[in-house]
Amino acid sequence: MAHRPAGPLSDPYMGLKKAAKNDMGGSTTSTKLLEVIGISLDFLNNECIPVELISMVPGKTYFSYALKSHKKLLSRPINKDLFSKKETVFKNWSALEKGRCNKKLIEPLAYTMAIAYCAASDLFDRGNKKGPATYFECLIGHLFARELGINPSKKVTLPTMGHGVRMTMDFIFDLGAGKPKVHLPVKMSTRERVVQAWSHQRILDSAFGHAAYRGILVIHSETKLDLKERQVVEICVPDQWLAYQTHLATMDRIYYFDMPDRYAQIADKLPFKNFSEVFIEKEEVLSAPMA
Amino acid sequence: MAHRPAGPLSDPYMGLKKAAKNDMGGSTTSTKLLEVIGISLDFLNNECIPVELISMVPGKTYFSYALKSHKKLLSRPINKDLFSKKETVFKNWSALEKGRCNKKLIEPLAYTMAIAYCAASDLFDRGNKKGPATYFECLIGHLFARELGINPSKKVTLPTMGHGVRMTMDFIFDLGAGKPKVHLPVKMSTRERVVQAWSHQRILDSAFGHAAYRGILVIHSETKLDLKERQVVEICVPDQWLAYQTHLATMDRIYYFDMPDRYAQIADKLPFKNFSEVFIEKEEVLSAPMA
Repeated sequence: MAHRPAGPLSDPYMGLKKAAKNDMGGSTTSTKLLEVIGISLDFLNNECIPVELISMVPGKTYFSYALKSHKKLLSRPINKDLFSKKETVFKNWSALEKGRCNKKLIEPLAYTMAIAYCAASDLFDRGNKKGPATYFECLIGHLFARELGINPSKKVTLPTMGHGVRMTMDFIFDLGAGKPKVHLPVKMSTRERVVQAWSHQRILDSAFGHAAYRGILVIHSETKLDLKERQVVEICVPDQWLAYQTHLATMDRIYYFDMPDRYAQIADKLPFKNFSEVFIEKEEVLSAPMA
Repeated sequence: MAHRPAGPLSDPYMGLKKAAKNDMGGSTTSTKLLEVIGISLDFLNNECIPVELISMVPGKTYFSYALKSHKKLLSRPINKDLFSKKETVFKNWSALEKGRCNKKLIEPLAYTMAIAYCAASDLFDRGNKKGPATYFECLIGHLFARELGINPSKKVTLPTMGHGVRMTMDFIFDLGAGKPKVHLPVKMSTRERVVQAWSHQRILDSAFGHAAYRGILVIHSETKLDLKERQVVEICVPDQWLAYQTHLATMDRIYYFDMPDRYAQIADKLPFKNFSEVFIEKEEVLSAPMA
């Protein structure tokens, strides 16, 4: 049976999961998503206090939330410049729904929508790593399904040794005849597991030919909090990623909500972009034929 | 700092790790390995009792050890037919060192050498997953280094976008000019992480050409113990593995200490073999040019 998270967000979270399963890009999923985000931000605002962290990342400031009733327990680190208040989130979401679209609006909106539930979950359901990961998948699945006007699948049938093998991937969007499909791996952070994203892309290239599937990797951030020292660092392995991109498969885009400094520096070699660009370069990246 | 396991095996384990680092295939590593195994088997024999398990795997019987002082805590499941007494292990090891080599001798010897420390560690250092994994790596690294007469490396330099990228893999053996090198990924059990083994093989194929590296995957077993029901099952995903082998890279061999039933059934499609075959088909597989 699926794990039901503890705390005040249990019902809204289960509601979102159900809506996303029924109709990933639908308006019910939007509503449920906003409900989870609203309750999360109220919880963080009313029952928690912000705690300053020592940022080891040049140019970025981070804080955590702690429960008022138990100040030692800290949420994951939050990028101060990218975190918005509840009113701003709801106002900007409405603007996005009406078609307004610029980096200044979307960057903090998307960042806050992603981290609000995860930070809250850290505090009321410690140790539940699956909840935040599933939530983040629903958020990304929903945003892409809305933009593309089509719901994703999680299964691919691969011609293998004379029969069809079904394999589960994060998300696959079929944009119709004549257009490359979208392979969309989604991770809160990558650590060593990222090789799976490039492997799945390689499997799709091998099974269906190069350029049949466009690989778009979406990652929230790579921050790590040292709880004892209250220091935030970014864990990056640029050399490994260059090797994956050269020798395993080619990702068309790697979108970050909070782009690590060391990856931004090699954006000439790997297709790193801020997640807000999904909405801005949508036509070019998601629908155009591949180079 | 490296984790130092708790309990009576702490010093012997650290000694083995150091010896393996200095000279993986050397006689000091043999000695330290046998020391760890001897103490583990004494501990299991003297301070623990065997507990019967319900095997859901046709034709195989499993048991766990429990501490006499705390009977609820169970070790990982042990295959009864493959588990030997301490005297038998030491006698068979001597025979192997003197060049005796047959399946009946090696299969239980290798199985017991691998599981003795891991089962003991489950009981005196619960929750330490790294220790058993590192121990198993030392065992496999040592056995291959002895057979091949050369120590492994863990680093490969890959030509990548105009410069060399160093990547860490489990083991790489360079058998000299004119022979394929050996890429040896090692896992106690695979679960979802096995894609890394095929990915690394694919990266080596792409960087150095097909047949430059021979992929040999070594896995202990795929058993899973349901602690509440005391049932043992085998977790297998044959379709996924067929897809990896078809679309990612080709493994030359997949050696199991305790071969899962469902994998044995598709040994015509994937190169599954019992680990004892390493010693028997050594010349053919490890040194011959690849097909």
